[in-house]
Amino acid sequence: MLKGYTLPRTPRGTSSLAPTPPWHYVGNALAVEYAADPKAAAAFLPAGLSLASNRCAAYFIEWQYSSETEEEFLDPVRSQYRETIILLSAEFEGSPVAYCPFIWVDQDVSLMRGLIQGWPKQFGATWITRAYGLPSKANPAIGPGGKFGATLSVKDRRLIEARVTLRELTDALPTPNFAKAVNVRYFPELTAGKHQKPAVHELVQLKSRDVMVSPIWKGEAALEILDHPYIELPDLRPTAVSAGYRFSFALTVDDLTQLKDLRDTETASD
Amino acid sequence: MLKGYTLPRTPRGTSSLAPTPPWHYVGNALAVEYAADPKAAAAFLPAGLSLASNRCAAYFIEWQYSSETEEEFLDPVRSQYRETIILLSAEFEGSPVAYCPFIWVDQDVSLMRGLIQGWPKQFGATWITRAYGLPSKANPAIGPGGKFGATLSVKDRRLIEARVTLRELTDALPTPNFAKAVNVRYFPELTAGKHQKPAVHELVQLKSRDVMVSPIWKGEAALEILDHPYIELPDLRPTAVSAGYRFSFALTVDDLTQLKDLRDTETASD
Amino acid sequence: MLKGYTLPRTPRGTSSLAPTPPWHYVGNALAVEYAADPKAAAAFLPAGLSLASNRCAAYFIEWQYSSETEEEFLDPVRSQYRETIILLSAEFEGSPVAYCPFIWVDQDVSLMRGLIQGWPKQFGATWITRAYGLPSKANPAIGPGGKFGATLSVKDRRLIEARVTLRELTDALPTPNFAKAVNVRYFPELTAGKHQKPAVHELVQLKSRDVMVSPIWKGEAALEILDHPYIELPDLRPTAVSAGYRFSFALTVDDLTQLKDLRDTETASD
Amino acid sequence: MLKGYTLPRTPRGTSSLAPTPPWHYVGNALAVEYAADPKAAAAFLPAGLSLASNRCAAYFIEWQYSSETEEEFLDPVRSQYRETIILLSAEFEGSPVAYCPFIWVDQDVSLMRGLIQGWPKQFGATWITRAYGLPSKANPAIGPGGKFGATLSVKDRRLIEARVTLRELTDALPTPNFAKAVNVRYFPELTAGKHQKPAVHELVQLKSRDVMVSPIWKGEAALEILDHPYIELPDLRPTAVSAGYRFSFALTVDDLTQLKDLRDTETASD
Repeated sequence: MLKGYTLPRTPRGTSSLAPTPPWHYVGNALAVEYAADPKAAAAFLPAGLSLASNRCAAYFIEWQYSSETEEEFLDPVRSQYRETIILLSAEFEGSPVAYCPFIWVDQDVSLMRGLIQGWPKQFGATWITRAYGLPSKANPAIGPGGKFGATLSVKDRRLIEARVTLRELTDALPTPNFAKAVNVRYFPELTAGKHQKPAVHELVQLKSRDVMVSPIWKGEAALEILDHPYIELPDLRPTAVSAGYRFSFALTVDDLTQLKDLRDTETASD
Repeated sequence: MLKGYTLPRTPRGTSSLAPTPPWHYVGNALAVEYAADPKAAAAFLPAGLSLASNRCAAYFIEWQYSSETEEEFLDPVRSQYRETIILLSAEFEGSPVAYCPFIWVDQDVSLMRGLIQGWPKQFGATWITRAYGLPSKANPAIGPGGKFGATLSVKDRRLIEARVTLRELTDALPTPNFAKAVNVRYFPELTAGKHQKPAVHELVQLKSRDVMVSPIWKGEAALEILDHPYIELPDLRPTAVSAGYRFSFALTVDDLTQLKDLRDTETASD
Repeated sequence: MLKGYTLPRTPRGTSSLAPTPPWHYVGNALAVEYAADPKAAAAFLPAGLSLASNRCAAYFIEWQYSSETEEEFLDPVRSQYRETIILLSAEFEGSPVAYCPFIWVDQDVSLMRGLIQGWPKQFGATWITRAYGLPSKANPAIGPGGKFGATLSVKDRRLIEARVTLRELTDALPTPNFAKAVNVRYFPELTAGKHQKPAVHELVQLKSRDVMVSPIWKGEAALEILDHPYIELPDLRPTAVSAGYRFSFALTVDDLTQLKDLRDTETASD
Repeated sequence: MLKGYTLPRTPRGTSSLAPTPPWHYVGNALAVEYAADPKAAAAFLPAGLSLASNRCAAYFIEWQYSSETEEEFLDPVRSQYRETIILLSAEFEGSPVAYCPFIWVDQDVSLMRGLIQGWPKQFGATWITRAYGLPSKANPAIGPGGKFGATLSVKDRRLIEARVTLRELTDALPTPNFAKAVNVRYFPELTAGKHQKPAVHELVQLKSRDVMVSPIWKGEAALEILDHPYIELPDLRPTAVSAGYRFSFALTVDDLTQLKDLRDTETASD
C-alpha cells in the first residue's frame, strides 16, 4: 500500500514532495500597504467574494519551515524559501477577508503545499534586505531610519521593487493580512471536453494556529510594479502607497475550511 | 469572471501557470534500460496495477514546449526544461503499461502540467550531454562510439549518474516507454480529519498524439543510483543494465483517460 | 608543491577552477548584426583601439566544453554553459579587430577561463531557442522560416531580447566576429594607494585553433536592449538591425598574443 | 578613458563587476572547529607557510555586502551571498596565520572580489539554518539547545554537512579565524609556453578594518566531508571535531599587504 500526503506516493511514504501536516513556519516579512484601482482589483475576485476596499498589500517573506517530525530546518535546502504575496481587501458574506491574486515562491515543496491550500503559487525570485544587528554600511537597523529593499523577478523579468524606511513601532499588522485569508483550491481535468470542468474548484478559508508575531516596525514605503507582457499584476499597480512594515511571525498550518464549492460556477479557461 | 486553465485565475486568463491544452513538446532523450529487484519494484505500484517484469528505464530529457497559441519557444525561459523519469513495467487488466514512481523537472510550468497528468513531479537538476554535429573533443558523435552522460541532483544531492556509448541504429524504443503510461492523479485535502481522504485520487492513462520519433541510436550503458536519506529511489537500483539509447521525439498532449477512481481505496499518509 | 593552472592550487592539482589549456569548445550560436551610435561605441574602446565602424553584433551561445584530459562533457554540469557576447568593430594598428565591451556567462569555470583571456565576464542568464529536427509547434526548422529567440537577464533584470527568422544559407559569418578578437586582461591591486595601478593591464589578441563552422543560416532579426540602472549596455542600443544568423562552431584555445602593456596608461577607477 | 576597478571597464565605470573598495560586509556565521591529518593539511600550504597545528575550521556564512556609495543591500540580489570557507592553522615567519585551501560562494561579484584578495573562490551552494527569534518547531533558539545545520554542494554533489548545538556564550572566536589570514593571489598567463609562469603569484595578508563581532555562542558539533571525484577537500576530512559556534560579524576591506612575491617559486600546473 502506497503512502504519502502528496505525490510521489511510495512504499515508505518518505518521498512525498509535501509531508503530512502540521507544517510549521517562521519568517521575516517586509510589507507595503497600498491602494489600487478598485475596479481593477474587483475584477480579480472569485465568485463569492466582493471588494471591501481598494487597499492592497505586498508581502516579501523569507521563510523557514519544518514538518512535525522531520526537522527540515537542519537541512535548510529542504526548508528555506522566499515568497512574494499580493493581498486584496475582500468580503465574504459580510465578513472582511483577504484574497490573494498572485504569489511567487522559489521551492517545489512550498509550491505543492501552497496549491493544496489554494495559494496560486508560481515560481519567482524574491530578494529581501536582511538585518544583522551590527553597525555596518551593509546593514540596516531594525529601528528608526532602517532602510530595507525587496524585489521580485519572474522568468527573468523584474516585476516588483519595494523600499521601506522604518520609523516607529506599531501594534497593528498591515491590512489586508493573512488572518482568515480566503483562497480558491483548483485542480483541472485534462480529459478532452472537460478542460473547463475542474475536478476541484472551491472557496476555502485558511486556518493558522499558534501564530506568534514579533514587534512590528512601520514607516514610509515606495512600491513599483513593472510592466509585464502576460502576467496581469500591473493591473494592480499602486495608485498610492500608505506605509511599509517589517516584522517576523510564526504559524502552524494543518487545517482549512471549505466555504463554497464552485464547481457549478460558470468557468472559462481562456 | 476569472479565466485560466490553472491557478492563478485572472480577468484575462493570461497569468495561469499552465495554459489550456494542447501542449506541444519536443525533446532529446538519453535513456538506460535496466533491471531492478522485482519485489522492490512491485512495492511502488498503485492499486490496480501489477508488475509485468523487473525491467525499468531511466530517461533524461531536454525539452522545449509551446502551447497552441503562445509560441513560448521564442521566450525559452518559459519553454525549456530538463527532466529525469523512472519507468516500471506494469500491467493493467492484462495489458502492459508503464508506471512512473519518480520524475524530476526544473521549471514550475512543467511541474504544474505534470501534476494535472498525474506525473509525481518534484524539482531536480538534470544535465545531459549535447551533440553539436562538429568534430571536437567537447562533442560526442551521434553515431558509433559517441559517448553521452547524464546526471540528476535533488536538493543538492547527486542521485543518478548515467553513461551511454552509441553503437548502432535500432527500430525499437527502450522498454518500458511513454506510450500509454499509467499515472495516479492525486490532490489531497487539508481540512482536519481528511488528510488521508484526497479530493482527487484516480488511475489515469496518458493519451499523446502526433508522436514523432527520430532515428534511434542504441549502445551499452552504465547507471548508478546513489544513496539518499529519504527519497526511496535507491530501492529501484539496477541489478543489471541492458542498453542505452539516444533519440529525439515530439508529441502533443490534450487528453487523458480515467481508468479507475481510487478514492475508495484504503490510503495511508505516513 | 602546489599544482593547478588557477586557484585553488592543491597537492594533486585536480581542484583548480580552470584546468591547464587546451580548452575545447563547441556551441550553437544565434547572432544579430546591428548598428549603434558610433560615438557611444567608440567610448567603450580601450587605449590602443579605434572604432572601425558602428557595426556591432550580439551573440547568444549554448556551449559545451572539455579540457584535454577530463571529458567534462560527460559530467555536463562541469561543461555546459550559456553566454551572451557583444562585439564592436575596432581597429588595432590599421587591422580590423573585434572588441568585446560586455559578456555574460552562467558557470564559474567559464568566468575564470574568460578572465584569463581578458573577456570581461559577469554572470547573466541566457536562454536560446533550440532546434530538434522534428516537426512540432514547439520547434523551429533550421531552414527558411525557422524562428528563434534569445534573452539575457542580469541580476534579475531582463536586458536583451532578440528574434531571428532564418531565410537562406550564407558563406559569411556575422561581422564583427571572434576571429582575432582583442581583449583587455586586467587584474587589480587591493593594497591601499594602488587601487588604480593594476597588477595586470594589457591588450591581448585571442588565438583560437581548430575552428570548425557548420552551415550558416541568415535571415531577418529584431534586437531590443532594455533600460538598466547601472550596466551601460543601453548606450550600445541598436539604431538599426541588419541581419540575424544561426550556426554551430567549434574551436580550441591554448594561446594568446600580448599586443600592448597598458599599465602605464592613465587609469581611473570611478 | 575607461573606468572601473575590475572588468568590464566602461565609459562611466558603473558596469564593473566589483566596484572600487572599500567593501563593507556583515554576516551570520556557523562554524565548526576540527582536527585533520597534519600531513594532509601541510600538503595544502603554499611556499612560505608551514603548518602550525592540525586544527582546522569550516565556516558557513550568510553575507550582506555594500560598497561605499551604492547601497547594494537595498537591491539585495546584488548584495547577498552565501559562503563556505575552510581554514588551516599555518605559520608565516614565526607568526600564526590562517590559510584557506578552499572557499565556495554563489555570486559573481563575490567571486571577483575574492580573487582580488587571493581567496581561491569557486561556486558552491551553501545553506545555513536561520534564527528568527520566535518559538516554532521551524526555528532554533540562539541559546542553549539551539540546533543549526549547514550544507555545501558543489556542481550538484553534496560535499559538506555540519550540525551545531549551542550550549553557552564564549569570549573566543573559533580557531583558526579570519584575522590576518594569508592568501595567494594568482593570475595565470595563457600565452603558449607561459602556462606555468603566472603574471601574478604572491603571498598576501588580509587587512580588515572596523571589525564588529556579536556575542559568540559555542556548543558541540558534527562535521561530515563527503567523497568527491576531483575536489581534494576529503583529504582534509575531520579526524576529530572539537566545537561548533554561531555568531555575527561585520568588517570592511580596502587594503592588503604583500608578504612575498612567489613568481620565482617553482610551479607546476598539473
